[in-house]
Amino acid sequence: IVLYDYWRSSASYRVRIALGLKGLSFRSISVDLVAGSHHDGAHLARNPQGLVPAIEIDGLMLTQSLAILEYLEESRPGHPLLPADPAQRAHVRALSLAIACEIHPLSNLGVLKKVEGLAGAQARATWNRDNIRRGLEAVEAMLERSEFSGRFCLGERPGMADCTLIPQLYNATRWGVNFDDLGRICAVAQS
Amino acid sequence: IVLYDYWRSSASYRVRIALGLKGLSFRSISVDLVAGSHHDGAHLARNPQGLVPAIEIDGLMLTQSLAILEYLEESRPGHPLLPADPAQRAHVRALSLAIACEIHPLSNLGVLKKVEGLAGAQARATWNRDNIRRGLEAVEAMLERSEFSGRFCLGERPGMADCTLIPQLYNATRWGVNFDDLGRICAVAQS
Repeated sequence: IVLYDYWRSSASYRVRIALGLKGLSFRSISVDLVAGSHHDGAHLARNPQGLVPAIEIDGLMLTQSLAILEYLEESRPGHPLLPADPAQRAHVRALSLAIACEIHPLSNLGVLKKVEGLAGAQARATWNRDNIRRGLEAVEAMLERSEFSGRFCLGERPGMADCTLIPQLYNATRWGVNFDDLGRICAVAQS
Repeated sequence: IVLYDYWRSSASYRVRIALGLKGLSFRSISVDLVAGSHHDGAHLARNPQGLVPAIEIDGLMLTQSLAILEYLEESRPGHPLLPADPAQRAHVRALSLAIACEIHPLSNLGVLKKVEGLAGAQARATWNRDNIRRGLEAVEAMLERSEFSGRFCLGERPGMADCTLIPQLYNATRWGVNFDDLGRICAVAQS
């Protein structure tokens, strides 16, 4: 398994956590997003979207972190990333997508550069912080309301939603977004 | 089955197509996004994210369109939304997520309003068109490279990726984004 990776990419971080939970060893090859290496022909051949992560596994080159997590779940036994019950699976996937579709895309480096180009560095910082905070508030409400929540996003074992939440919290801290008052999220972070 | 819906929401449109493919009848209740009804307490009780779609099914209230499609796939036989092979499933999911995570979130009404507030109506239009066009180019490259593509995103039957692509193409047309030169996408649209 070869992971095309960048240390600060939270989508790559999701896959690193999942590989760790599954107990799979892998080689990491860094694609330097700050230096623009993701726009190189070599990387576009791996992933036409020009994003990380991409993963070489079973003779395939897979992209999109949540699709990679689903593939790991379907092809590798061991620690489950999804529960067995369809209703619980839907909850875990909804939490993961609430982060991957609603929070993370607006904090993408390319998007932030565009906002800065349009309205300046201050607007970029506000944009990013507001979006992360509002998104985490929604995730907190989803966790609070769920009958399935435990020490982790679902129950007592970390899974797909935790793989998605933890990198987002790293990002929140990096950008100075306080989430101390979001009790369920803090509990997951401490677990 | 009750779908909390808005006619112009492309995330809701994904679920409507999937329900249609599965041959499931449902009642649609409109949540008027333009009038702001998604911020009402009644809707937030359904979905703390304040988004559509939300679906009442099997005594559950589910959110996030792709999580809903996975639930329909796991709980309802009939027309498959995902193929059986894990590598093909990963491809269909990656295509779906390339649209749901990279194109759609930046065209969300709330995000577009924010861009307009920062930099004006012209900047909003350019932002939206550039993002949709660049995203569709990446999806075209993913389809082109795949050994699995057929008349539809994967093979000869519409599935999850088609449920995600078709609403995005409606949106592209609505905002004046030309995709006539993207041959694989046009072929899927015609099918």
